[in-house]
Amino acid sequence: MTFKAADPDFESRIRASFARQGVMRLIGASIVRVEPGAVDIELPFREDLTQQHGYFHAGISSTIADSAGGYAAYTLFPASSSVLTVEFKINLVAPAEGEKLVARGRVKKAGRTLTVCELEVAAVKDGRERACAYGLQTMMRIDAMADGRPAG
Amino acid sequence: MTFKAADPDFESRIRASFARQGVMRLIGASIVRVEPGAVDIELPFREDLTQQHGYFHAGISSTIADSAGGYAAYTLFPASSSVLTVEFKINLVAPAEGEKLVARGRVKKAGRTLTVCELEVAAVKDGRERACAYGLQTMMRIDAMADGRPAG
Amino acid sequence: MTFKAADPDFESRIRASFARQGVMRLIGASIVRVEPGAVDIELPFREDLTQQHGYFHAGISSTIADSAGGYAAYTLFPASSSVLTVEFKINLVAPAEGEKLVARGRVKKAGRTLTVCELEVAAVKDGRERACAYGLQTMMRIDAMADGRPAG
Amino acid sequence: MTFKAADPDFESRIRASFARQGVMRLIGASIVRVEPGAVDIELPFREDLTQQHGYFHAGISSTIADSAGGYAAYTLFPASSSVLTVEFKINLVAPAEGEKLVARGRVKKAGRTLTVCELEVAAVKDGRERACAYGLQTMMRIDAMADGRPAG
Repeated sequence: MTFKAADPDFESRIRASFARQGVMRLIGASIVRVEPGAVDIELPFREDLTQQHGYFHAGISSTIADSAGGYAAYTLFPASSSVLTVEFKINLVAPAEGEKLVARGRVKKAGRTLTVCELEVAAVKDGRERACAYGLQTMMRIDAMADGRPAG
Repeated sequence: MTFKAADPDFESRIRASFARQGVMRLIGASIVRVEPGAVDIELPFREDLTQQHGYFHAGISSTIADSAGGYAAYTLFPASSSVLTVEFKINLVAPAEGEKLVARGRVKKAGRTLTVCELEVAAVKDGRERACAYGLQTMMRIDAMADGRPAG
Repeated sequence: MTFKAADPDFESRIRASFARQGVMRLIGASIVRVEPGAVDIELPFREDLTQQHGYFHAGISSTIADSAGGYAAYTLFPASSSVLTVEFKINLVAPAEGEKLVARGRVKKAGRTLTVCELEVAAVKDGRERACAYGLQTMMRIDAMADGRPAG
Repeated sequence: MTFKAADPDFESRIRASFARQGVMRLIGASIVRVEPGAVDIELPFREDLTQQHGYFHAGISSTIADSAGGYAAYTLFPASSSVLTVEFKINLVAPAEGEKLVARGRVKKAGRTLTVCELEVAAVKDGRERACAYGLQTMMRIDAMADGRPAG
């Protein structure tokens, strides 16, 4: 699917919002692709991101998938709006094992209030990529609220 | 629902497995309830767990919810087994705002291979609790694999 | 949870809308409980509602669960509004086998635009009830659209 | 993705199983594509398949989507096995309005026990197709149980 962004400055808007997500710094994630309706987030492996078997924790895969989908939706929103996750569902189809994860959010349907995204997380191990999670997500556009932390 | 744990040492088994989840130390989560079919995890607020509006990130709510449900299921498994998340779905119904989160995992249906859990995350703000997420999760019992990181 | 319906005539509004759902007549479902935030739908067994093993088809369980949740949400909406399903997720935890199904929709969170419901489907076999599905659903309130089929 | 079916007679096995689904006859659905990992089901519009606004009921979209995904998974299973839906999630992204629906089930990940499928339902109106639902589904392979209704 091809989308056009209404806001010409969507990329800097998304990158600024991503930079405000404290959790992305904590885990070491970076945003590596920002296009209308499509955002990718990468996350190198660290011991402190694991579950009990030493793989990336499913919640960490979900964290970067949720942000990738949320920002994919947000690329298409007007500059004055904000974005919230309504819900998402994720299937963990293989161990999230490797030197890094790549989460991809893709808009499937852009609506006035709700936008639906497809999520995919791939694990890169020894340079080879393998899908480890698939998801579906509903995002909501909030017109009355500017993005960014409220002052104070 | 009331469940009986087949393994009398389920609590120490769950706590040991939880201690191996590197990500729980990273975010500062602790396991505060372990009963047959029921596990609660708490997470105090920190700036580095937030999304762009300064609330807990949905992925962080999901991370503790996923572990709470996973360990709720694991309480009912035999000692020789392991547990994996097949999938989960989560609805974020209110901002995850407050001094801490409490994630509760409750087994709804314990099957031989698959176990289904209900997830709830509440935000505690000024001492008052409010539900901020509801979820549903499918866990899988793996008999051939001991829990814990494979050696070397 | 206890809810109050803003519209005093919510019950007749829900029953009239249910009566317009052609598919409920086709499958033989009836609405057996209508309270603020809570709706139950019953469906007697018939051979022509089955999947390949002779149980109720998962889609049929989903159909009555979706309507039960949708109408549970709709009890709390103003009379001038309409209701649409945004999404739902359902876990089939036991065969839907027996003389009838009962689907229960319960509002978990009533919001201005979105309402989240919990779904449960039980199968009644030889007079004994057993849960066969659990779900979670997001409903949307549409203010600009009256319920009922558009003329012409 | 490209898959190979282990059972050379997968197509006749799927068609025979589909013919045993009483509900497919009731609603008038037919299976129009059966390939390894891919099944399509079509459903012409009828008044008795509708919700209160005169569109196809979300549960009916879900019914054919669930069977499309289930049979897509089943194409890859051995002849001696059976298939059950573990869970699915569906987003209704546009009114299911038109002269027919087409549900497409596609295997995303084929596992030994669990198989994950992507679901799409499109509505065809005046000959033009538009996506009206996206879903994600988990199917389970049951080795001890032959497909088809138990005798007696």
